[in-house]
Amino acid sequence: MSCKSVHGSPIFIERCMTAVGTKPHHARSLAEVLVEGDHRGHYSHGLNRMDMYVKDIQTGICEKDGEPVIEKESAATALVDGKNLLGPVVGNFCMNLALKKAKEVGIGWVVAHGSNHFGIAGYYSKQALKENMIGMSFTNSSPLVVPTRGKECTLGTNPISVAAPAKDGDSFVLDMATSAVALGKVELHERRGDPIPEGWGCDAQGKLTTDPKRVLSGGGLLPIGGSEATGGYKGYGLGMMVEVFCGILAGAQYSKHIRTWKVTDRVANLGQCFVAINPENFAPGFSDRMSDLLSIQRGMAPCDPDKPVLAAGDPERINIKKCEEMGGIPYHINVVKYMNECAKRIGVSLLLPCDNLIPN
Amino acid sequence: MSCKSVHGSPIFIERCMTAVGTKPHHARSLAEVLVEGDHRGHYSHGLNRMDMYVKDIQTGICEKDGEPVIEKESAATALVDGKNLLGPVVGNFCMNLALKKAKEVGIGWVVAHGSNHFGIAGYYSKQALKENMIGMSFTNSSPLVVPTRGKECTLGTNPISVAAPAKDGDSFVLDMATSAVALGKVELHERRGDPIPEGWGCDAQGKLTTDPKRVLSGGGLLPIGGSEATGGYKGYGLGMMVEVFCGILAGAQYSKHIRTWKVTDRVANLGQCFVAINPENFAPGFSDRMSDLLSIQRGMAPCDPDKPVLAAGDPERINIKKCEEMGGIPYHINVVKYMNECAKRIGVSLLLPCDNLIPN
Repeated sequence: MSCKSVHGSPIFIERCMTAVGTKPHHARSLAEVLVEGDHRGHYSHGLNRMDMYVKDIQTGICEKDGEPVIEKESAATALVDGKNLLGPVVGNFCMNLALKKAKEVGIGWVVAHGSNHFGIAGYYSKQALKENMIGMSFTNSSPLVVPTRGKECTLGTNPISVAAPAKDGDSFVLDMATSAVALGKVELHERRGDPIPEGWGCDAQGKLTTDPKRVLSGGGLLPIGGSEATGGYKGYGLGMMVEVFCGILAGAQYSKHIRTWKVTDRVANLGQCFVAINPENFAPGFSDRMSDLLSIQRGMAPCDPDKPVLAAGDPERINIKKCEEMGGIPYHINVVKYMNECAKRIGVSLLLPCDNLIPN
Repeated sequence: MSCKSVHGSPIFIERCMTAVGTKPHHARSLAEVLVEGDHRGHYSHGLNRMDMYVKDIQTGICEKDGEPVIEKESAATALVDGKNLLGPVVGNFCMNLALKKAKEVGIGWVVAHGSNHFGIAGYYSKQALKENMIGMSFTNSSPLVVPTRGKECTLGTNPISVAAPAKDGDSFVLDMATSAVALGKVELHERRGDPIPEGWGCDAQGKLTTDPKRVLSGGGLLPIGGSEATGGYKGYGLGMMVEVFCGILAGAQYSKHIRTWKVTDRVANLGQCFVAINPENFAPGFSDRMSDLLSIQRGMAPCDPDKPVLAAGDPERINIKKCEEMGGIPYHINVVKYMNECAKRIGVSLLLPCDNLIPN
C-alpha cells in the first residue's frame, strides 16, 4: 500500500523543521529541495531523509540560524563560507550568486566550504533553466566508494549535475552519482535477499562481489564503469574531479577526512561547487540546437521497442507526470507513518494525511 | 621489434606538415601535441595519425594558413572561430585565452567552432599546470557511441580532460573518453581474434556483444558503464554533457551531424571547450590538499599487491619515465616504416631513424 500525499509534504517538512528551531526560510528551502527529490522520483533524497535533518538541527551539529558569507569574490568567481547551515540554504545562496555572475560576465563559478547535505544535486543545476542558462552542481560526500585497485572507501558518491535549457520548457538534466549505483540500491537488494549485478560493489578486500552483504560490511561501492577491465578507473577519475571542484578548491573536508556516512560526531564541512553558464555569451541558437540534440536521441528506433531511448531528465519527467495524474506524490505508507511519529515527538500535531490509500 | 626514435619525431612531423604547405608554427603545434600523445603512451593519438593530418592539409579539407578569431568575448568567456585550422592551433589559441582570463577574473571558459581533431585532450588541460591552475578540455567527435537503449551511433567518444596541480610538480591529469573504451581497443581485439569484454560495444541491433567484428560492422561503442543495468546511462549522459559544452554551446556540428569517422568528404567543424580555473581565487592551500588527496589514494594497500592504486595521470607518468630511460619514444617498426613511406611521397628526405631496434 502507498499513501497519496496531496501536496502536503512541503508544508509538513517546513513545520517539522521550524518546530526544532530552524529559521523559517531555511526550513522552506530544505522542504522545497526534499519534495523536489520525491517529485523527481529520487525518494532516497526526499521526505525519507527528513528525520536526518531534524536530528542535525536538534543536536546542534548543523546551525539553525545565520546566513552564508562570501569570503572572496571576482566578477566570475566566489568562495563562500556556508557557516555550517543546512545544505539547501548554502546551495541556493551559491547558485543565485553564480547566476548573477553569469548574467554579468557569462559564467559564475562558486564554491562553498562549511556546507551540509544539500539533497538532490539536480535541484541547484535546474535553477539555471529559469534563466535560460546552463547550471552545474557538485558536492563531495562521506566516503563510500573504493578507488580502482584499492580496498578502502576514500571517495563519496560525489554527484555531477548539469542542466541545459532546450525550446518550449524542454531540457537536459543530468544528475548522477560517480559511483556505479547509489548505496540505497545495494541496501534494497540485501533486504530482498537478491544478489547485485557484478560491477556495483566490492568486499573488504577490494574484490568484486555480487553479495550485497559483503559490500555493506566493510566493502564499498565501485566507481562508474565497475572493474578496471570495464573502465572503472574512469568513474574513479570523475569522483576525484568532483572532489577537486569541491573539497580541494573550497578548503572543506575531503576524501576520507569526511565523517563516516550517518555518523554525526562532528560537523560535516562539506565542499560544494555551483556553476552557471550563459549561452548568450556564446553562439546564437543554443536552445534550438539543444532541442535537436534531444530529438536525435529520443527519436531513434530503440533496441527494445518497449524501452524508448531517453535523455537525461526524462525518467524524472515521467515521474513528475505520474504524480500530477495522481494529484500528489505517492509515499510508502511506512514512510508516512515513520515521519508522522517523528513529527509527534517534536510536538508537530498537523500530520501528513494517511487515509488516501492506493494499491501498489 | 620496436624502433627507438631518439627525440626525432617532433622534427619529423613538423617537416612532413610543412612539406605539404602547413604554416610552420601550425606544424610545430601539431607535432608537439602528437609527440606528447606518444610520450604519454596514447600511441593511437600520436605519430600514428600523422598521415591523417597530412592528408587533411593536402586535400584542403583543413586550412593551412590563417589564425583563429575571437567572435564574442567577456572578461571570463570567449567564443572562437577556429577558421577550420588544425585542431592544435585552435586548441592552443583557446587554452591560452582561457588562462589569460583566469589570471584576471579566476576563470576562463572558451569554446570554439570550426575546429578539427586536436590530438589528446590532456595536452590542453595540462597547459594550465604551468600556471598553477586547473585546466579542462573537451571535444566532440565523429559518431561512434550508441546511447543507452538505442542502436544508432549519435555521439562521439567525446573526451573529458581535467588537470589539477599538486605540490612539487605532481598533478592529477584525467584524460578519458566518455565511451567504455576507445575504438582502437576493439580493433586490436578483432585483429588478434580475441573476444571483447561485455560492456564495450553493441551490434547493429543495439544488443551487447563480445564479438569485436559485430561492433565494427554497423554496431558501436557503449558509453562508460556499459549496459543500462550497470549504469551505462551515466556515460551516455556524460557524452551528452560534453556535446552541450562543445557543439551546442559553440554552434559547431554536433551528434550525428558530424561527418563519419575517417571520412573527409566535408569540413569537420568540430566544437571544443577549454577552461582554466585559478585556485588563487578560492581557498588558500590548494596544492597541499591536492597532494594529500593523491597520497590518500596512492598510499592505500592495494587489492592485488602487484597493482598499486594509481591516480589519473600516473599511467602516463610511468610511460614518460620508460621513454626517458630508453632515451626516446619506442615506436613499432611498422609505424616508422609507414610514416617514412608517407614522408617520401611528399618529398621529405630526412626520415625517422629505423636502425635502433629493440626487442618487444
